[in-house]
Amino acid sequence: MDDPVLLTGAGGRVGQAILRGIGEDHEWRLLDREPLSADRLPPGVTDDDVIVADVTDTAAMVEAMDGVGAVIHLAGDPRPEAPWNSVLENNIDGAQTAFEAAVDAGVEKVAFASSNHAVSAYETDARTPEMYRTDDDYGLDGTELPRPGNLYGVSKAAGETLGRYYHDTEDLSVVCVRIGNLTESHPPRNYERGQAMWLSHRDCAHLFDRCIRADYEYEIVYGISDNERKYYSIERAREALGYDPEDDSAAYTLEGEPRDKA
Amino acid sequence: MDDPVLLTGAGGRVGQAILRGIGEDHEWRLLDREPLSADRLPPGVTDDDVIVADVTDTAAMVEAMDGVGAVIHLAGDPRPEAPWNSVLENNIDGAQTAFEAAVDAGVEKVAFASSNHAVSAYETDARTPEMYRTDDDYGLDGTELPRPGNLYGVSKAAGETLGRYYHDTEDLSVVCVRIGNLTESHPPRNYERGQAMWLSHRDCAHLFDRCIRADYEYEIVYGISDNERKYYSIERAREALGYDPEDDSAAYTLEGEPRDKA
Repeated sequence: MDDPVLLTGAGGRVGQAILRGIGEDHEWRLLDREPLSADRLPPGVTDDDVIVADVTDTAAMVEAMDGVGAVIHLAGDPRPEAPWNSVLENNIDGAQTAFEAAVDAGVEKVAFASSNHAVSAYETDARTPEMYRTDDDYGLDGTELPRPGNLYGVSKAAGETLGRYYHDTEDLSVVCVRIGNLTESHPPRNYERGQAMWLSHRDCAHLFDRCIRADYEYEIVYGISDNERKYYSIERAREALGYDPEDDSAAYTLEGEPRDKA
Repeated sequence: MDDPVLLTGAGGRVGQAILRGIGEDHEWRLLDREPLSADRLPPGVTDDDVIVADVTDTAAMVEAMDGVGAVIHLAGDPRPEAPWNSVLENNIDGAQTAFEAAVDAGVEKVAFASSNHAVSAYETDARTPEMYRTDDDYGLDGTELPRPGNLYGVSKAAGETLGRYYHDTEDLSVVCVRIGNLTESHPPRNYERGQAMWLSHRDCAHLFDRCIRADYEYEIVYGISDNERKYYSIERAREALGYDPEDDSAAYTLEGEPRDKA
């Protein structure tokens, strides 16, 4: 059996999508700042595998990483409209605590949950809504500088830079996943942007499975399904991680209903 | 007379280089967390123009920016080896406070003191010392992603991203100056890296004068003299700001002595 995987923010939306998809494929250690009810734990995971702590608690984070092979760091304030003081503490300081603790504990790799909000200001009035459509060529591939649309996005860009620093100076393998619009079942309804950056639950779980299993140095990848309409490239996720998504928002109408086969 | 310029961190090394060079060319308001002795004030500037406050003090920062046309934000922990808690507070939170206060006060433009440390991890073992030399082609031009060599550099990259955010969302003009190795008189001695990124005092003052006077949207520029050996491009500073440096470390020997004319 491989070393356990530490999942921070395990009770959140992304964490739950991961655990429902690949909960039986790894040995888990779960961390959240709230206790996790039994329905949020995958089979075989008990309260003994759950740590209730804040991500800025260095001692708790180092202890949580003892013996861990890989970390998926999701914990933080997930609100795009979160105020500065919250993202400064929970997202920026939290990410630094996670990376530093991973290095201290000898963890091999960290997948950091970044966000589409780190680059959402590329969606200027002049480019939208055309850039959300299939026939528009504008795209981002992860090599561009951050352009956050909110302070939450600023905090995610800072986390990416922290990951770069800990990779360069401590040889930690780091992948930053700019997560798109995660929904269960159908894509977001009547929301072109959300359909362009849709990430289905099963593709999300598969992507983070690849973050656990693949070998990489430092990567920034976009976490979206293989949507026909997209302005985020998934080429780097395919190449660096072996990501092979199954879903496409084009299989649904703009209203989110399954599309009749032509 | 134009609106006054607010200079934060006015008592520091960069602040003093600016004030000694262009102290008589603008009306100044100076901010530092320590009182400034009379020898640190340019002619005509009195204690009435000096605000003693911390950059994370929102109320003091907003008051300091009242009626100001441009801000040069230098304040922060300047130590490359500064610990995380200090750069998180003084440099990251401080930069956010400065940008937010500038927007609140209706300031037109902010020059943010970034640093070569935001990209110093591009200087890998495989590339150095060759990249510091004239005959090596490797270079950075400001479009590359940050690769900080220390947590201070992480904090400066975060400040750049904050500037991008406040430009995109609030229409603030922002220039981030990745300051090289500032010394008075001769370039750093027996330090190839320092000679490649040398910034003379007079070029520093001229560069920030251009940051006050030029019209720009959002820029990342390198702040170095026109050194013959350099791996930072100054093209963007020339084009966007009208920067026209006078100095070149090649006018000095590696020991820092003036070079005999050939």
